[in-house]
Amino acid sequence: MKAIRDPVHNIILFDKAEEKVLLDLIDTREFQRLRRIRQLGFSSFTYPGAEHTRFIHSIGVAHLTKRFIEKISYVKADRCFAKDLIDRKLLIVASALLHDIGHGPFSHALEHITHIPHEEWTKKIIKGKTEVNQVLTAHGINPHDVAEMIQRTHHLKAAVKILSSQLDADRMDYLLRDSKMTGAGYGSFDLEWILNVLRIGKINEDIEIGLDREKGQSIAEDFVMARYYMYINVYFHKTTKSAELMANKIFQRALELHKEQQNILPEGLNLVLSDGISDHTLNKYLELTDDTFWHYIYLWQQNDDPILKNLCKRIITRKLYKAVTQKVDPFELVEKANRVADKTGIPQSYLILRDEASTSSYKDPYLLEPKIDEQQTEKEASEQIFLFDRKGKAQELSDISDVIRQIRNKKIHIERLFVPEEYKKEIFGGDV
Amino acid sequence: MKAIRDPVHNIILFDKAEEKVLLDLIDTREFQRLRRIRQLGFSSFTYPGAEHTRFIHSIGVAHLTKRFIEKISYVKADRCFAKDLIDRKLLIVASALLHDIGHGPFSHALEHITHIPHEEWTKKIIKGKTEVNQVLTAHGINPHDVAEMIQRTHHLKAAVKILSSQLDADRMDYLLRDSKMTGAGYGSFDLEWILNVLRIGKINEDIEIGLDREKGQSIAEDFVMARYYMYINVYFHKTTKSAELMANKIFQRALELHKEQQNILPEGLNLVLSDGISDHTLNKYLELTDDTFWHYIYLWQQNDDPILKNLCKRIITRKLYKAVTQKVDPFELVEKANRVADKTGIPQSYLILRDEASTSSYKDPYLLEPKIDEQQTEKEASEQIFLFDRKGKAQELSDISDVIRQIRNKKIHIERLFVPEEYKKEIFGGDV
Amino acid sequence: MKAIRDPVHNIILFDKAEEKVLLDLIDTREFQRLRRIRQLGFSSFTYPGAEHTRFIHSIGVAHLTKRFIEKISYVKADRCFAKDLIDRKLLIVASALLHDIGHGPFSHALEHITHIPHEEWTKKIIKGKTEVNQVLTAHGINPHDVAEMIQRTHHLKAAVKILSSQLDADRMDYLLRDSKMTGAGYGSFDLEWILNVLRIGKINEDIEIGLDREKGQSIAEDFVMARYYMYINVYFHKTTKSAELMANKIFQRALELHKEQQNILPEGLNLVLSDGISDHTLNKYLELTDDTFWHYIYLWQQNDDPILKNLCKRIITRKLYKAVTQKVDPFELVEKANRVADKTGIPQSYLILRDEASTSSYKDPYLLEPKIDEQQTEKEASEQIFLFDRKGKAQELSDISDVIRQIRNKKIHIERLFVPEEYKKEIFGGDV
Amino acid sequence: MKAIRDPVHNIILFDKAEEKVLLDLIDTREFQRLRRIRQLGFSSFTYPGAEHTRFIHSIGVAHLTKRFIEKISYVKADRCFAKDLIDRKLLIVASALLHDIGHGPFSHALEHITHIPHEEWTKKIIKGKTEVNQVLTAHGINPHDVAEMIQRTHHLKAAVKILSSQLDADRMDYLLRDSKMTGAGYGSFDLEWILNVLRIGKINEDIEIGLDREKGQSIAEDFVMARYYMYINVYFHKTTKSAELMANKIFQRALELHKEQQNILPEGLNLVLSDGISDHTLNKYLELTDDTFWHYIYLWQQNDDPILKNLCKRIITRKLYKAVTQKVDPFELVEKANRVADKTGIPQSYLILRDEASTSSYKDPYLLEPKIDEQQTEKEASEQIFLFDRKGKAQELSDISDVIRQIRNKKIHIERLFVPEEYKKEIFGGDV
Repeated sequence: MKAIRDPVHNIILFDKAEEKVLLDLIDTREFQRLRRIRQLGFSSFTYPGAEHTRFIHSIGVAHLTKRFIEKISYVKADRCFAKDLIDRKLLIVASALLHDIGHGPFSHALEHITHIPHEEWTKKIIKGKTEVNQVLTAHGINPHDVAEMIQRTHHLKAAVKILSSQLDADRMDYLLRDSKMTGAGYGSFDLEWILNVLRIGKINEDIEIGLDREKGQSIAEDFVMARYYMYINVYFHKTTKSAELMANKIFQRALELHKEQQNILPEGLNLVLSDGISDHTLNKYLELTDDTFWHYIYLWQQNDDPILKNLCKRIITRKLYKAVTQKVDPFELVEKANRVADKTGIPQSYLILRDEASTSSYKDPYLLEPKIDEQQTEKEASEQIFLFDRKGKAQELSDISDVIRQIRNKKIHIERLFVPEEYKKEIFGGDV
Repeated sequence: MKAIRDPVHNIILFDKAEEKVLLDLIDTREFQRLRRIRQLGFSSFTYPGAEHTRFIHSIGVAHLTKRFIEKISYVKADRCFAKDLIDRKLLIVASALLHDIGHGPFSHALEHITHIPHEEWTKKIIKGKTEVNQVLTAHGINPHDVAEMIQRTHHLKAAVKILSSQLDADRMDYLLRDSKMTGAGYGSFDLEWILNVLRIGKINEDIEIGLDREKGQSIAEDFVMARYYMYINVYFHKTTKSAELMANKIFQRALELHKEQQNILPEGLNLVLSDGISDHTLNKYLELTDDTFWHYIYLWQQNDDPILKNLCKRIITRKLYKAVTQKVDPFELVEKANRVADKTGIPQSYLILRDEASTSSYKDPYLLEPKIDEQQTEKEASEQIFLFDRKGKAQELSDISDVIRQIRNKKIHIERLFVPEEYKKEIFGGDV
Repeated sequence: MKAIRDPVHNIILFDKAEEKVLLDLIDTREFQRLRRIRQLGFSSFTYPGAEHTRFIHSIGVAHLTKRFIEKISYVKADRCFAKDLIDRKLLIVASALLHDIGHGPFSHALEHITHIPHEEWTKKIIKGKTEVNQVLTAHGINPHDVAEMIQRTHHLKAAVKILSSQLDADRMDYLLRDSKMTGAGYGSFDLEWILNVLRIGKINEDIEIGLDREKGQSIAEDFVMARYYMYINVYFHKTTKSAELMANKIFQRALELHKEQQNILPEGLNLVLSDGISDHTLNKYLELTDDTFWHYIYLWQQNDDPILKNLCKRIITRKLYKAVTQKVDPFELVEKANRVADKTGIPQSYLILRDEASTSSYKDPYLLEPKIDEQQTEKEASEQIFLFDRKGKAQELSDISDVIRQIRNKKIHIERLFVPEEYKKEIFGGDV
Repeated sequence: MKAIRDPVHNIILFDKAEEKVLLDLIDTREFQRLRRIRQLGFSSFTYPGAEHTRFIHSIGVAHLTKRFIEKISYVKADRCFAKDLIDRKLLIVASALLHDIGHGPFSHALEHITHIPHEEWTKKIIKGKTEVNQVLTAHGINPHDVAEMIQRTHHLKAAVKILSSQLDADRMDYLLRDSKMTGAGYGSFDLEWILNVLRIGKINEDIEIGLDREKGQSIAEDFVMARYYMYINVYFHKTTKSAELMANKIFQRALELHKEQQNILPEGLNLVLSDGISDHTLNKYLELTDDTFWHYIYLWQQNDDPILKNLCKRIITRKLYKAVTQKVDPFELVEKANRVADKTGIPQSYLILRDEASTSSYKDPYLLEPKIDEQQTEKEASEQIFLFDRKGKAQELSDISDVIRQIRNKKIHIERLFVPEEYKKEIFGGDV
């Protein structure tokens, strides 16, 4: 038994023989790299304890996925439906372990300028010439199955549900972990009780994961509410958002300068920008970590470009743009902003930053405004939380819970502008 | 009130008016930099949750120092002795906040090659041309007082004791924090009870901090034992030690190559090496963070030097040297090691790494073998834990506790060799 | 300092000099009696850890009330409003300590047969010839003020609010305590954050307690939700309710037998039944504890009356009546129940027990259906949770929170019948 | 699955089919009775949260015993030794559940006057005409095996060790539970890590339970230390001891009066005193609970005997005798005590109570002075904590741990006198 100690799950065990594939995956270069990428990006500017990495989160998700499967296979009435889960346990847990493997540092800033979603890198890492791919193959797991699991296209619907849905191992780990590490208590919920009331059953023709209706409705509501409060108070915290937007602008500016032949970008990023996603660039992409980006931000404090230099200096010393929540007259705003931009030489797009929830790494169809998009609705449907009654009949949580219906009908909507503190008054007036 | 949420202390409050100096210190460039330096260095290789920084630890120590002073000033019988503490509270808490300000990234590796202890940088940052110095002065705190507090030379002995002794706010924060973040339960102890039984009194002519004898002996013992177990199981964990030693070797090698004119070191480090400690180099030193070093380790994976390249590749993918605990015949060892060194071209000093407890960042005269050094003994005396009886008479903990005397008399002694796994058998034989 | 250790609040401190009145109140015969009365009555039949007493709960409420007042007086902007709270702190905390002093054992069963609400006993204990009354008077606290505080008629509205409202120290203690002791996690919430965002302000002409709107809405919602889940899952748990209803029936039966001159009731209860509330009967009332009632239930196992005997045997061995949640045709039910009653000789009123939420000790206008009663509505108004914005303007929680409005508009409504397991099928059919 | 929520272990599960014997045992009259007997007797006078019962503790021990066996059977290397444990799991867990079944209320006071150890009642309940006996037999478990398990005479040494030794499920549950319920943090230890490092192996010819030496020495020490601190600070707390001694005296006095034909004892106790242990008296013994004794103590407040009356009034209002720790001249003490006895009419044996550790319910050969008794030494040997190295070789903890050897060599020795506060000065002088 390999024991990994964890502030959230305490002891995480992997069997050195039976689960060797998991231990070997953890030992790959691609997975070890997740040690150097923070789970919550810039949240540590707001909650300084939140320095935890995607490495430990990924291990936590694998651990929880195992516990899900073990629990489900333990309930006698459910065993018939759980057979596939039990048979394919290693595939499912390996997929859980790898679900975030493609994330880069400063994920959203990076996607913003490369136009390559992290999901593409995940697919590439699993299917490409990587240690991960070799380990999977060597242990008889088909990397394509893993990719399908993560992309939600695998035919084993119940497994997909455990990996990615409204009630999945991913959300459970990140809520508990983010809640504990930030110190903001909102995200905590009674994990053991959720596991205790887990059920599996048939809905129409699909095998689905859910909770026992009688014993699980309160905890299901509590779980959705926990997420809701984490969004409002942690993930969308204005200080964190300000830093995220500033990072976006730093990379946007660096890219502009780069296009002017200044060649200031890290080598790996440079290559990805020119050549896109490929075996060749993957290798370089895998060398990009939070460290590299912070190193460059430190360097760029000396850059000749005043805009880049200023943004970097500000983020390093935490002189973040301030949020304005007040409603403003757009005509007046533009006029005043133009005036300040003229005076300072800072282009307006670097002077006033606009928060769009869609830039968030935390996407949640229960809580957030969806893009108007049919596929989204369908995806949402496949991610719902079901509650099974004693006879195995299922109902969707928001059909029976007024509280959840309320939350769903009034999705989180955020509109915020950010501006350097020194120009706040001039642009927005005195009382903001 | 500024509220900082913390996984260890929950809510840390600073008064925006009365404690503005503390908030201003936190906002300095020098202090913000601690966000980018991990508290436990390489422990996250062993305990992947342990990514917490010196930033949050320093704030935690300031918070605990405040609680110490408030508690002491609350006990009526003790108030007469506590007057100075109360009067100089901001000075003391500011000193607590700044006690680790000079730490660099990979502190011990760095000190090893620059020969400048981090305490020197601390002094420099407090007294030199820095934002910290400006903030202190602007708020009427003499930076020299702060430096003396931290160096333990300040005449306010009781304050020095709170900052740095066997029973100080520093140790209390790091034990609780390291214990929580690693997930290894050993370091936890009943902080609230320690605070509840805190006492202040006179011993000979000095005012000293201690605990109530009747109510505090068990907790005092428990606290020393907690430290003891953290040393054995966390701070001196063989995996962590292996990574630390490898990092030392990486920088030693880079320095050797640097001396051969290869100029591969980060600019800041380069300058410090050539010019030593000065206002000029301080500025560069302050740009060195964990990020920079990890960035270089990533770069050096491509270095032409096979030794440097190999060490960097290994540490990045966590292929760490393995510990050998077995006693070996030194003559035989040298012979075999030479043979492997000849064969592989790896110099012996890079093939077998030797663990010396003295390289540890955690120094603790109660637990560790002291260097034979008179000053040490004196320092130790001034760091003891006292227990006050009802009449205010004090006794030293190890004079009344058999358990602690036992621990003290048998200090932790560690002797370990580390070697790449692939040569372990060849050098040390089959059964290690 | 007197330190009391508590599983919920850890260390509770009272100053031996300044708060002597509190320590003296705790030492009275009337308060010590609360050691022998369980907080949650029959909940330990469902949650066997829940054996905590009204004694520790009352101390917890006093402790929290102190923390409320201290916190409020700490916020500079609020200090002007907090003056009265600070000046009358001992009165308010003493009132908190005594708020449950009149509770008897098996409170609801007892009230049911004596027709004397526990609030009347509370008033009597505070104003009558008791040690509590003497202690208050001796320390210069007017017992009438205490009684008015507890009855919510005292002119110090903000204090009344802290003691008894939707957001009071009582609810906070019992949620945390009941949650911890039952092991059902629902009731936990972030107490420290609530305290951190406490505010005081003026609404119309009254000084009111509330929370900071920006930082407090999430926690306010979370707190109301925690209560909601505790009601559904703990306080109204069917097993607990069954035992409560059975205890009611035991005392109802004993009373019937008593009226037939059998004189089987405990002496104190006997006297209260004949003479009502008076100085004379108070003395006897104060000797009634959970112990006495359980002792009699043990004795009554040997009673000649088969109904009493059977109920006592059942409750002692936890052969509780079973809940029926199914809707039934009342005509059919009556017919079948009559048939079983005829056959067994058990009168129908002892055969089928009816659950009415109104018998609950936990009354909560936010969550429960109020009796149709104008005063209730008024009382509710005075118990609301307010959120203050930066300018001190207040809004009621359910005016700004959709979730809470949802909860309030659909109050908990419970309708359950309970029947001995052996007759369940015969009366209600096979499928219940 | 039957789920029981518990403040210590969170969710305790029993399989409704496979573990029906356990659920049936819990439902017996004899086991349900443990709900009415507190685990810590009079500790709630010192720690008012400590109201937990032998009922929940017994369930906790059964749960831990299951976890022990499951963990051991999980370690591949150990499986060969664990076969018997796995095969006889239900027998072992049932024995764990029943290990305290014979305890009466106020156990030590009761044993003191009846001269029947609770172990005798345990044997009687298991082997006699009881529901427990019927349930065991009905499920194919031989009650004699259960009795032998509990008496430590069963040939399955490893099982006996899990039930009763220095490192048993009983101690683990009560340390965690008592620590949590009292709020005194000393007893907490890392249960999950102990379970993780559990081992089984052969020592001489016996199969023994132990811990992994490399990973388990720190936790083993920590566990013994936790017990040590609980003894000093909780179990032997002077306030608790005073109440225990007073209860002893109350029953001693009642017995004296009873012998003078006053017939004031509870019926069940009366019968046990006259007829000893038998099927007939067992039935009455099983009706004695904490409730009955407290009920009688309330009644005896009105007794004509001034000594009995006074002791009862005192304990009910917590006017406990005060401890004297000071060394006194026995000749002087006797003289003064006689004088006060003459003056007050209180016989000396009721005036000064003597604390003997041997009256404690917590016996612990590692920590307490043994009676000089050969059998004791032998028993101690069979209860030791073993640490297994990689090759399966075992060493006893105190052979390799200096700390533990230190603790063992200086066993806890307590000598205290207790006296009513009002006579303390007169008998012991001013300065105690």
